Amino acid sequence: MTTHIRPATSDDVATIMRFVRELAEYERAADKVVATEPLLEDALFGERPAAEALIAEQNGAPVGMALFFHNFSTWTGWRGIYLEDLYVTPSARGSGAGGALLRHLAGIAVDRGCTRFEWSVLDWNAPALAFYKSLGAEPMDEWTVHRVSGDALTKLAGR
Amino acid sequence: MTTHIRPATSDDVATIMRFVRELAEYERAADKVVATEPLLEDALFGERPAAEALIAEQNGAPVGMALFFHNFSTWTGWRGIYLEDLYVTPSARGSGAGGALLRHLAGIAVDRGCTRFEWSVLDWNAPALAFYKSLGAEPMDEWTVHRVSGDALTKLAGR
Repeated sequence: MTTHIRPATSDDVATIMRFVRELAEYERAADKVVATEPLLEDALFGERPAAEALIAEQNGAPVGMALFFHNFSTWTGWRGIYLEDLYVTPSARGSGAGGALLRHLAGIAVDRGCTRFEWSVLDWNAPALAFYKSLGAEPMDEWTVHRVSGDALTKLAGR
Repeated sequence: MTTHIRPATSDDVATIMRFVRELAEYERAADKVVATEPLLEDALFGERPAAEALIAEQNGAPVGMALFFHNFSTWTGWRGIYLEDLYVTPSARGSGAGGALLRHLAGIAVDRGCTRFEWSVLDWNAPALAFYKSLGAEPMDEWTVHRVSGDALTKLAGR
């Protein structure tokens, strides 16, 4: 099955929102999705974009997406690419769409002079872990992301 | 000891570079620092800034810094703050400078409407883990960051 990768446009926002919800369901976190189509539209295609997205198509229909933004490393002194969401619809899994999205993004990273391409993986997602290992991804096992949000964030800010 | 927090300016680049090197030494990764002052200058104060920095001062002298950028969550549909580097010089540790930097950044997060404030911690850095827990930070234990870089990145990109 041939996969075609293209940049998302604002016509894709409804599809992206659907993919975000389906991915959250797979990640057992459907209740965590509070994003809306207008928020995504603004984040991807507004005046100050916060992220970018790619759409994977097969036979002219969207079957997956990659949503990413630039991070920054003080060690390298340079931008990297951080892949926030990679999603392929269940019917298209195993068809090469996920790999095509990752290879396309690696190409964007190289073209933009980025020396790192990173994303986060759920520890119980064994098929994903095996797939990423096969692509040469190195797990940053020594590091754990910490998050302050909600009331703890307001409290830390002293508000 | 009173700590004053202010945004970094291009006059601080040499100090920031020194702090980046000292932090990498503490993280047992001094050889990983390939950033230079011109790269940091461009990343922080160039035409398209990739990151922002805060300086902590005590008695008019810089004793620490926080270097951060915006990330993006598809679940929230909104920007967050990602703290790439937090550093306090050894002589100022325990003086409240680290907490002052984190509280200031939490305030920036709230002011900018961010719902998440995140950073990564080395699993063996017990004092840091205890400190962050005391501030209400939640470890994202289920997730591991994966990284493709160097030759693996070029290969994945098919170059």
